[in-house]
Amino acid sequence: MADVSEKQAVVSNKQVIFKDYISRFPEESDMIITCNENVKLKVEAGSKDIVVKNLYLSCDPYMRLLMSNQRSEIFAPYTPGTVITGFGVAKVVESGHPEFEQGDLVWGMVGWEEYSVLKSTDGLFKIHHTDVPLSYYTGILGMPGLTAYAGFYEVCKPKKGEYVFVSAASGAVGQLVGQFAKLMGCYVVGSAGTQDKVELLKTKFGFDDAFNYKEEPDLNATLKRYFPEGIDIYFENVGGKMLDAVLLNMRVHGRIAVCGMISQYNRPQPEGIHNLMTIVYKRVRIEGLAVFDYYPQYSKFLDFILPYIREGKVKYVEDIAEGLENAPAALIGLFSGRNVGKQVVVV
Amino acid sequence: MADVSEKQAVVSNKQVIFKDYISRFPEESDMIITCNENVKLKVEAGSKDIVVKNLYLSCDPYMRLLMSNQRSEIFAPYTPGTVITGFGVAKVVESGHPEFEQGDLVWGMVGWEEYSVLKSTDGLFKIHHTDVPLSYYTGILGMPGLTAYAGFYEVCKPKKGEYVFVSAASGAVGQLVGQFAKLMGCYVVGSAGTQDKVELLKTKFGFDDAFNYKEEPDLNATLKRYFPEGIDIYFENVGGKMLDAVLLNMRVHGRIAVCGMISQYNRPQPEGIHNLMTIVYKRVRIEGLAVFDYYPQYSKFLDFILPYIREGKVKYVEDIAEGLENAPAALIGLFSGRNVGKQVVVV
Repeated sequence: MADVSEKQAVVSNKQVIFKDYISRFPEESDMIITCNENVKLKVEAGSKDIVVKNLYLSCDPYMRLLMSNQRSEIFAPYTPGTVITGFGVAKVVESGHPEFEQGDLVWGMVGWEEYSVLKSTDGLFKIHHTDVPLSYYTGILGMPGLTAYAGFYEVCKPKKGEYVFVSAASGAVGQLVGQFAKLMGCYVVGSAGTQDKVELLKTKFGFDDAFNYKEEPDLNATLKRYFPEGIDIYFENVGGKMLDAVLLNMRVHGRIAVCGMISQYNRPQPEGIHNLMTIVYKRVRIEGLAVFDYYPQYSKFLDFILPYIREGKVKYVEDIAEGLENAPAALIGLFSGRNVGKQVVVV
Repeated sequence: MADVSEKQAVVSNKQVIFKDYISRFPEESDMIITCNENVKLKVEAGSKDIVVKNLYLSCDPYMRLLMSNQRSEIFAPYTPGTVITGFGVAKVVESGHPEFEQGDLVWGMVGWEEYSVLKSTDGLFKIHHTDVPLSYYTGILGMPGLTAYAGFYEVCKPKKGEYVFVSAASGAVGQLVGQFAKLMGCYVVGSAGTQDKVELLKTKFGFDDAFNYKEEPDLNATLKRYFPEGIDIYFENVGGKMLDAVLLNMRVHGRIAVCGMISQYNRPQPEGIHNLMTIVYKRVRIEGLAVFDYYPQYSKFLDFILPYIREGKVKYVEDIAEGLENAPAALIGLFSGRNVGKQVVVV
């Protein structure tokens, strides 16, 4: 076995650098593309560092939160002047870690760059199943997939025949929640922001119905139309006015899994939610969800989801951008709803 | 056995009549005291009606909601021109019901009047233990007691050593939640609206600490001061700005039991809650609570609470108003915090 200190490669490494904190809608110029030539990628002697070549990068709404200078229990903000980080699929180039070796495919936190040196393997999963698209490990087989699985089954605790509403329903998580709801025998309606997405929900993903929220001036009335009996389960991805309208339409003992609130991330202050008293009238449970809590269930999740993918019973739509130079636009596109399905960047 | 149709008494029956719907702070003049002379109280032949003489009436915050013309899953609004209803303790005068007989003591829904004819015995509990004050069946041994018990133990699922915050902490429910938290080995802080109530919390009820929210201009800072480690459990009685501040101070996997939101009941529209995204960061569960769901546990609750009362280990403070003519002022006093402890009216 060669000394690990000898394991080093000289490469050029294109990167996406975070410029500075914002409290507005993000712009491409908030990220800078740089290319560092003759970078020596090495595993520090005696360390458990891993050097990876990044293959696919994931654009996720939470990344906007890291562009604000606010720390939370689950997010540390980006550091201005350093590389953007996010979920990605990568191949191990060099490894000082006994559990990873050259050629291994992995998914987890990487930099938005061609090569990353990973100082920690916490939350890094080895990819064992490659008969499915590798990019799926940024989506259905990665963080969003486990989020949908844990959020729907563990937090919402669905029962057959229940009424399920999913917002941002064609997104990375929403499209899966809707399909899981159908597998469970629920009635499921999704909201999205274009007519094309609405069609996708109804045809490709098998939602019972769907609507374009941008064409609905009165969301309370809209929800009453789609759910005359009310909503048992709301999978919350958007927040704001949609949440307030949903609260008026929940059924007794309903459940709301809060995965995210993308409509609020670009506002200096979130909108006020006025209808929380309805959770007393209806004895509703609202529960926040962070995927990290469910990492121990990842292999159980894979056992569940892989057969459905192989049999074509669960479908997954990706929106793939080509190249790191298009990554900033792809990320920003999430917030205007430009992406159709899971937004991925192929490096 | 005499024919039930003969069972009738002629009495005078003082009543508190609900005048009309309001969307502002209630006033005494929203209720009218009337006295009907020569009222024949009778059990309708063949019915299961019960005639009761009311002894104690309960003033509860939810009653304000019934003064607005808004129906919810658990509340039907009052009918203008008819008698106010609420929880009360009463003695059976005549009964057509096989399970109740003359002289029985009961608690449940009655009219704000000297005598009520009860057409239904749903939610009417017979009182078997009279070695404790009868008025307790409007409070610690009635709806508020069961609410505190179910809300704290069933909804909040407390663990020893957790940090518990209770708002409206000297009220009918709050004073019990604080004491239950101490029994469980939690650290508990309460908020109230006067210095006297704050003292009561710390001395009589054994709260670890307490503060007067009216003297705290920045509730977020206040909570950070009382809970430097954050809040595991919030028992929500007030809503509005307090809830928004609490959300910023919850700990990971914290729980919020929403019992009521008294600060919002007199507003045309509730205040907006802005900090809900924190429930994702902290994976917080918020759950609405209605006592009716826990009625099947009432006898289990009595077995739990009666020994504590008899041994003086759980205390209960009541604020007793004398006479039906003082009932409207007593009810309204809840919303300015005039009452110290559970507000009761002795008829």
